[in-house]
Amino acid sequence: MADNGIVPDWQREARIGVGEAVYCGGKTAEQILRITVLADERKHSLLLTKLEPGRFAELDAGAQRRLGFDPLSHTAVLDHGLPTPIPSRVGIVSAGTSDMPVAVEAQRALAFHGVSAPVIGDIGVAGLWRLLDRLEEIAAWRIVIVVAGMEGALFSVVAGQVPGLVIAVPTSVGYGVAAGGATALHSALASCAPGVVAVNIDNGFGAACAALKLLRGFREVI
Amino acid sequence: MADNGIVPDWQREARIGVGEAVYCGGKTAEQILRITVLADERKHSLLLTKLEPGRFAELDAGAQRRLGFDPLSHTAVLDHGLPTPIPSRVGIVSAGTSDMPVAVEAQRALAFHGVSAPVIGDIGVAGLWRLLDRLEEIAAWRIVIVVAGMEGALFSVVAGQVPGLVIAVPTSVGYGVAAGGATALHSALASCAPGVVAVNIDNGFGAACAALKLLRGFREVI
Amino acid sequence: MADNGIVPDWQREARIGVGEAVYCGGKTAEQILRITVLADERKHSLLLTKLEPGRFAELDAGAQRRLGFDPLSHTAVLDHGLPTPIPSRVGIVSAGTSDMPVAVEAQRALAFHGVSAPVIGDIGVAGLWRLLDRLEEIAAWRIVIVVAGMEGALFSVVAGQVPGLVIAVPTSVGYGVAAGGATALHSALASCAPGVVAVNIDNGFGAACAALKLLRGFREVI
Amino acid sequence: MADNGIVPDWQREARIGVGEAVYCGGKTAEQILRITVLADERKHSLLLTKLEPGRFAELDAGAQRRLGFDPLSHTAVLDHGLPTPIPSRVGIVSAGTSDMPVAVEAQRALAFHGVSAPVIGDIGVAGLWRLLDRLEEIAAWRIVIVVAGMEGALFSVVAGQVPGLVIAVPTSVGYGVAAGGATALHSALASCAPGVVAVNIDNGFGAACAALKLLRGFREVI
Amino acid sequence: MADNGIVPDWQREARIGVGEAVYCGGKTAEQILRITVLADERKHSLLLTKLEPGRFAELDAGAQRRLGFDPLSHTAVLDHGLPTPIPSRVGIVSAGTSDMPVAVEAQRALAFHGVSAPVIGDIGVAGLWRLLDRLEEIAAWRIVIVVAGMEGALFSVVAGQVPGLVIAVPTSVGYGVAAGGATALHSALASCAPGVVAVNIDNGFGAACAALKLLRGFREVI
Amino acid sequence: MADNGIVPDWQREARIGVGEAVYCGGKTAEQILRITVLADERKHSLLLTKLEPGRFAELDAGAQRRLGFDPLSHTAVLDHGLPTPIPSRVGIVSAGTSDMPVAVEAQRALAFHGVSAPVIGDIGVAGLWRLLDRLEEIAAWRIVIVVAGMEGALFSVVAGQVPGLVIAVPTSVGYGVAAGGATALHSALASCAPGVVAVNIDNGFGAACAALKLLRGFREVI
Amino acid sequence: MADNGIVPDWQREARIGVGEAVYCGGKTAEQILRITVLADERKHSLLLTKLEPGRFAELDAGAQRRLGFDPLSHTAVLDHGLPTPIPSRVGIVSAGTSDMPVAVEAQRALAFHGVSAPVIGDIGVAGLWRLLDRLEEIAAWRIVIVVAGMEGALFSVVAGQVPGLVIAVPTSVGYGVAAGGATALHSALASCAPGVVAVNIDNGFGAACAALKLLRGFREVI
Amino acid sequence: MADNGIVPDWQREARIGVGEAVYCGGKTAEQILRITVLADERKHSLLLTKLEPGRFAELDAGAQRRLGFDPLSHTAVLDHGLPTPIPSRVGIVSAGTSDMPVAVEAQRALAFHGVSAPVIGDIGVAGLWRLLDRLEEIAAWRIVIVVAGMEGALFSVVAGQVPGLVIAVPTSVGYGVAAGGATALHSALASCAPGVVAVNIDNGFGAACAALKLLRGFREVI
Repeated sequence: MADNGIVPDWQREARIGVGEAVYCGGKTAEQILRITVLADERKHSLLLTKLEPGRFAELDAGAQRRLGFDPLSHTAVLDHGLPTPIPSRVGIVSAGTSDMPVAVEAQRALAFHGVSAPVIGDIGVAGLWRLLDRLEEIAAWRIVIVVAGMEGALFSVVAGQVPGLVIAVPTSVGYGVAAGGATALHSALASCAPGVVAVNIDNGFGAACAALKLLRGFREVI
Repeated sequence: MADNGIVPDWQREARIGVGEAVYCGGKTAEQILRITVLADERKHSLLLTKLEPGRFAELDAGAQRRLGFDPLSHTAVLDHGLPTPIPSRVGIVSAGTSDMPVAVEAQRALAFHGVSAPVIGDIGVAGLWRLLDRLEEIAAWRIVIVVAGMEGALFSVVAGQVPGLVIAVPTSVGYGVAAGGATALHSALASCAPGVVAVNIDNGFGAACAALKLLRGFREVI
Repeated sequence: MADNGIVPDWQREARIGVGEAVYCGGKTAEQILRITVLADERKHSLLLTKLEPGRFAELDAGAQRRLGFDPLSHTAVLDHGLPTPIPSRVGIVSAGTSDMPVAVEAQRALAFHGVSAPVIGDIGVAGLWRLLDRLEEIAAWRIVIVVAGMEGALFSVVAGQVPGLVIAVPTSVGYGVAAGGATALHSALASCAPGVVAVNIDNGFGAACAALKLLRGFREVI
Repeated sequence: MADNGIVPDWQREARIGVGEAVYCGGKTAEQILRITVLADERKHSLLLTKLEPGRFAELDAGAQRRLGFDPLSHTAVLDHGLPTPIPSRVGIVSAGTSDMPVAVEAQRALAFHGVSAPVIGDIGVAGLWRLLDRLEEIAAWRIVIVVAGMEGALFSVVAGQVPGLVIAVPTSVGYGVAAGGATALHSALASCAPGVVAVNIDNGFGAACAALKLLRGFREVI
Repeated sequence: MADNGIVPDWQREARIGVGEAVYCGGKTAEQILRITVLADERKHSLLLTKLEPGRFAELDAGAQRRLGFDPLSHTAVLDHGLPTPIPSRVGIVSAGTSDMPVAVEAQRALAFHGVSAPVIGDIGVAGLWRLLDRLEEIAAWRIVIVVAGMEGALFSVVAGQVPGLVIAVPTSVGYGVAAGGATALHSALASCAPGVVAVNIDNGFGAACAALKLLRGFREVI
Repeated sequence: MADNGIVPDWQREARIGVGEAVYCGGKTAEQILRITVLADERKHSLLLTKLEPGRFAELDAGAQRRLGFDPLSHTAVLDHGLPTPIPSRVGIVSAGTSDMPVAVEAQRALAFHGVSAPVIGDIGVAGLWRLLDRLEEIAAWRIVIVVAGMEGALFSVVAGQVPGLVIAVPTSVGYGVAAGGATALHSALASCAPGVVAVNIDNGFGAACAALKLLRGFREVI
Repeated sequence: MADNGIVPDWQREARIGVGEAVYCGGKTAEQILRITVLADERKHSLLLTKLEPGRFAELDAGAQRRLGFDPLSHTAVLDHGLPTPIPSRVGIVSAGTSDMPVAVEAQRALAFHGVSAPVIGDIGVAGLWRLLDRLEEIAAWRIVIVVAGMEGALFSVVAGQVPGLVIAVPTSVGYGVAAGGATALHSALASCAPGVVAVNIDNGFGAACAALKLLRGFREVI
Repeated sequence: MADNGIVPDWQREARIGVGEAVYCGGKTAEQILRITVLADERKHSLLLTKLEPGRFAELDAGAQRRLGFDPLSHTAVLDHGLPTPIPSRVGIVSAGTSDMPVAVEAQRALAFHGVSAPVIGDIGVAGLWRLLDRLEEIAAWRIVIVVAGMEGALFSVVAGQVPGLVIAVPTSVGYGVAAGGATALHSALASCAPGVVAVNIDNGFGAACAALKLLRGFREVI
């Protein structure tokens, strides 16, 4: 079990267009450290996701300094020469304030890969005017990452109004029958608006990866 | 087991404001017939719900004639002097054409109790203009029965736009994760718009009963 | 991301009859503080729900003083000139002592909007006499908010006995198959008593909003 | 695979107090026939449960004649000298007309073993007076088999009012969230009334067996 | 809200044979104290269940002294003259060591009501000899409370071997697909052995109440 | 209820890039006919999905002739001058023969909108060589619609090997724990390969719409 | 779409030790026929599983003659020179008569690959003596395929008594909480007996394949 | 309740080939200690599983010293003369770093019984080359324990490529729809690759036991 069985897929970005990120859920501080060491050896930048503040605090001071940690989105970045993000036709909308951590996870994952994308927050359908006020802006995007918990009605409303592809990111915000995000996820998948696609609950990173694959496939921005 | 154990609650309307209806799911044609006979003996009008066309066809010709059967909503009415429905501040909206059977079940249950209510069909959120076109009309209602399947986004959108109480009736329309209506039901209950209440899946009759109790409680119309 | 993406829907009360409340689940102390600052700037009163004592304790002392916090119901009130609640034809019944937090959440949400409503506690059906003793009082209400966990049998029993509309609030009280409140919720929705409507598990606030919309729609009290 | 792998447990009644019955769900007509032949050879009476009318019709005319089939409860009896049922302190109550097939399954299973038990039908809690009218009678029973679908509120109400043991038989009557009987089952198990026990959904036979084991254990009747 | 809405059902034991116990799940220390005070005023003994050690520790020292607390079963007893338990034909078997807390909850609830019952522990079916060794003893009981988690195979095996009524108490012991006790519960309900009845997951108290109702109904012991 | 409440969203294609299709699940033959009449009046081409052969057979002969029906994919096309499909960088792969109906639904929906896309069938991972043989071809696509039921492992394997965006279409193929398609859906959403997006179970049409929105957004082909 | 996208994995047996079988669920008669034609061309024997009698009846008379169809297990065999099965250390036990179709599916799949295995039927734990009578025989097997529905207690009991590996095949036999086989499956997976492994519900074929891989890996019989 | 109801099944290894291990979930430190004392008295070695570090820390220092505790896999070993593990034809592969604790649990359980097995870590299908690089090695094993969470695609891919029996160990690694391991479990059971068998979620110990029973049955290694 040399290297604790850790075999990073360094070739992933060349092969499929997005690099390997480190999902920190279920990993020990020791395992996370070992991966950053391997990356340092290769001068390979690294994005870490779902890194709980408590786990981050277990890392040694040096590692903490080297990692750019964002406590809202639970992401960290090991920077070995990342490019400055440049504007794109991708944007993010977030239904409520509680959904912001996931929206920012998507934004940070895009930025890590050189893509700048705005976040429009707090436009849940209970106050429809908030969405309608920003509709022209959103309609200009080719890819619209929509982040929403509870009943996830925002996915259908946006998808019915704008031509861009809606990538739905259901969140675990809510309680009772909403808890866990299953209702928001199912709302995205059962949407009456055609063409909505979804990623896993709270998976802002996944939505960003999908957007990146498209931008690269269609030779936009990057 | 005299009378096959059938003990109608004839006093229900006097006690709680809505009369006993006959839920025909799981009842044999013989049991349904026996109840109509008991009602005939008392000259008691009767509403039958969830009466499958196949079950209706098993009834004898006389019973079929006496019952006003509606094949779309699977309801039937035994009329021993029902009042002519009069206008109310209650209305029904339906997300899609496939939801109409449930919307009409609600409408027929209201009419049976003397209340006339319009149905506005096919205003699902994928084409938001259809709802916005009718918004003024809907905003004038005190009770808005919203019937929707699939992801049930309509519940939140209507509830965020109009002052009337939204009674959500999720329907079993859809497939995959929508199937059975659970997603639409959970969307209603987890709505980000405050004050949405829900009844069981496909239960247009229940929504009508809730409206009737309110109209009577607040001494409107009836 | 100016204002952290927080865009309160201040017009909500004018539009639909109940104002925006702050659901504190999943919000950071910083986000909650920011919203109260925005409300202070407009002299806008604010109701906060699902505010865990631990989260409340993270707020600075000034904010803690300005917020009227109730540790039983996890609600807080920012008061910029709220009216004194006046009596209504709305009442609340609670099945057990463990359900009181949710019953009080409903009561506090009504009071915030100027409506006074009594709570009758501990009348679960295992001791039916407790309900029958209070039946006359309950039968005089136009809206009966029933709060119950475990098997939620109280919803059907009350709804079968009184003319007022039963708004069922299932609670997460119980364990095993009751856990999470799904059984109580399903009991409300599948009730054999006609016209029961339900809100999400533990959603006392939602039941209050439904009642408020009705009182306003029918021009009662407020 | 001699005898098609059929090995009846003829000693069961001697060992545990109730005999082997033939659960016909998932059995072919051929398999059912073979078991009746084995029973005939031993002059062993036999109870068959969940025997669909369509399956019964596939049996040859001789077998149909020899089996006392009840199309309501889907039970059949092969009688090689069964005793005349005698009265007991066991009774059955049924919430609605649609629950009668399961109530009668329990009644027939008791009768097969020599125990006579009355069925009181149609006393669902939506009309509580129907239960209160019969309360004295029910309170005299030592074992009360309660059969109810939908929300199953009857289990708790009866158990809170009478001293006999309530054996809850949830039924699959209902639709939407009730469908399949899970809500009624969970209501029985999560009851706020102490001491309710439950059997599987639609399992009237199982409730009868439990009652029989008790009557024998306590040397009552049989 | 005088008395915090607490209305104990003191008449319950007279009416149905088992007294009101205090389910402490979801109750504050203050609410629990208030109930013990009400009981003290009436010299009414009291059984408390699901009392977490942490919650017990929040009570004042006087209350802690007055309550006989058992940390294994999370039960406590307020004793105002309880009878000495006397032997019965009821017994308890427990599949594994991890199931003992629930088995002891049942045992303590029986003892509170004056009934002594042995617990035979650690006889899970993986080592069938452990059950067979004790079979004669168990076969002499009229009521067998079987406590088991994981796959709950013990319910069927015992019920197929002994004449007493098996009351299954599924426990939340296990992980993965067993977690929460649903698998053990469903095993009890779907048992191929006739006449098994079940109570809620971890509900040792409920099983004891069922046994007590039977003992009283059949005039045994008590 | 003029026009049976049918209000087609004719402007949808102009607004969001894909036109309204007619989901025939839950619609009566009469409702379907009425929609085709409305389309004929406007010379508007129409795609019908989830049109069961039995429902199609209920339409009158004229309608049957006018509709190009495909019994494998349960789709039909009303053609008022559709363009000839032209090649694109979109392709479809299907795990097994049983998944072909859904793959062809996607293919037909693309063709209806003027996009030609190949289907590579029967490349499930149990025989990995079948996928590896076609990998170069698939790696050239910008959008890869992957159709798979059972455990849906194909989604992850393809997404880990090619740069195009994988749109996963889980199917209801399989039985036991696979039945209904939930396992395949969850596999797509929980994929260890970054950037997989999913649509509802059996929703080939939805995957095609997502692809069309992208092609239009990025000004490819159409 | 030449050959309808059908690409059999003829090399599978050489590669992994068991050949490709044709899962007929969800396949049209036409697709099934096409596969048999492809097999005939190569003189390749073929096992077909989950072939409903109704689907079999749709095949042309020639195909029906060429296929050895077993209506109990819904399997068919296209024989191009299969070997005569020879005895092995593998055996099958079945809990009840209703489980025999799945047990025979396993037996036929073994025989197709040249392995003869006995089936011991009807040894459910409700009558434990039936199992104990055959224990010596079962204890001699190296692999024990146990087929059981309902609560699946047999898996644990057998696994605790014999040294051979228990491969559990849960079946969909039962109703209520057992329906679909989930309870039996979970019982197998949560078994207190160490080392039980499981395959999908009703998947007798899968259990046979696992046994075949082991026999080949360990160079037994074949 | 002598010995706290603890009755170890010391004869288990002789009877079925694997010894009783101590599942520590739900056991108190006191109960765990008592079992080790009973083992010490007999000089019986003991494997403890699912021993949380916090629970281990509650044991007295002497016990902690005597137990070889591994904090990664939460296993401990009481060694009264265990054999040195010798090489076998069994191997373990693990999809990701987060799955290593479960893989090591399996490895330690095998070693406890004298079998040495390598672990190949981090070969998830998102980077298929990692698996293909090691394929020859894996193809030489007779039993392949595959440990994977999230979507569990690795089970099918390995099983389709190598002749050894795949024993799938789904893990609870992942979030959203993956959480709890149900998706990985269902992927294993619904695999399109024939002959995959599964154990419970996170049950590395169970997979090891299955392998041990086979090695003994086929007289390999041990």
